[in-house]
Amino acid sequence: MSNSPPSQRTTIRRKAQRGHYDGATIRNIVDEALVCHIAFNEGGSVHSLPTVCWRVGDHLYVHGARNSRLCAALLAGECSVSIALVDGLVLARSAFHHSMNFRSVVVYGRFESVEDAEESGRIFAALVDHVAPGRSRLVRAPAPAELSGTLLLRLPLREAAAKIRNWGVEDSADDLDWPVWAGVVPLRLVAGEAQAEPDCGPYPAPELPAFLCKELES
Amino acid sequence: MSNSPPSQRTTIRRKAQRGHYDGATIRNIVDEALVCHIAFNEGGSVHSLPTVCWRVGDHLYVHGARNSRLCAALLAGECSVSIALVDGLVLARSAFHHSMNFRSVVVYGRFESVEDAEESGRIFAALVDHVAPGRSRLVRAPAPAELSGTLLLRLPLREAAAKIRNWGVEDSADDLDWPVWAGVVPLRLVAGEAQAEPDCGPYPAPELPAFLCKELES
Repeated sequence: MSNSPPSQRTTIRRKAQRGHYDGATIRNIVDEALVCHIAFNEGGSVHSLPTVCWRVGDHLYVHGARNSRLCAALLAGECSVSIALVDGLVLARSAFHHSMNFRSVVVYGRFESVEDAEESGRIFAALVDHVAPGRSRLVRAPAPAELSGTLLLRLPLREAAAKIRNWGVEDSADDLDWPVWAGVVPLRLVAGEAQAEPDCGPYPAPELPAFLCKELES
Repeated sequence: MSNSPPSQRTTIRRKAQRGHYDGATIRNIVDEALVCHIAFNEGGSVHSLPTVCWRVGDHLYVHGARNSRLCAALLAGECSVSIALVDGLVLARSAFHHSMNFRSVVVYGRFESVEDAEESGRIFAALVDHVAPGRSRLVRAPAPAELSGTLLLRLPLREAAAKIRNWGVEDSADDLDWPVWAGVVPLRLVAGEAQAEPDCGPYPAPELPAFLCKELES
């Protein structure tokens, strides 16, 4: 993905120091996302749809039922997709300067479907590996009927921008001696203990991706 | 909030067993959200915007800069807001039956602004208390100039639906002896150790809301 200049609609004007447009930054945020939110128009309404997402190469992928109105709507027009990872609570001395640390991405464009069977198989395997690295080789592969009922959709990470806030409190100088704790409470999505199915055999528990840590680093 | 029947656009048709329309379920999900994603149309494009949200009574609240194009766009037309809390990875024996446990809400409607100063003050205090219960009484309250530059917007939780998946693996009977681990990996947003500002006095660290646990329950 090229580091192309931002478009009119991806340019971050307010708090511009939070804006990032380079491909590596955008890809890294997408790679930690389990869910994206798709904004699209259908049936005279605007809709916001949360759905599972993953990245392969320069595309964001989602999937849905092939015969669904949803997939038809996504193929029929432009959409906007957003991802937000919440990294911390920023607790200032003044109510007004409270904030959050986060990393977000917004992408504009139009989804296209992936119809090639070999390519679809590879991309769906990447979804399994996104949530459990290496697992796609261990599980029962999709059957033709399973694949044919599912539509794989992709959106280029081309017209995209990231926003990042990853620093401390920004109180006014006048407030620095206000008698209250101030600082950042880091937040992370953490994986708990894997809960095996009752009839599951003595197989090793799954590998987890690095972004789902088992413990918080301080 | 009444438990009104779902509208045409909030009725969940696919996997209908995941749909919930009662106010308590919807409010509980909103109350665990730090961020929502707003879908709206502006300038000939559809947009998906992640932003901080909180609930008071029967409304979802967001805020923005009073003179922003964003706030003007939100007041000018209908939008859809979605929230998604990811609760677990569902790792099946077959690639096709992999899933996620989640709780999500989608709301349709039109934002309105809150202009009453006393009411705004109360609602903004609730935002501080949403991320750190009781903190609004401890911090420096908003100054008139801070409040006047910020627009408080609210959306009724009226035309809304929740989707929940909170159960185990659903493999086909044919796949139950496939030789791979199967089960659920629970996920939670967890708060790490609070990091005080360098010049922060000896004040007690903040209270955190119950939904930001310090440790994972098994």
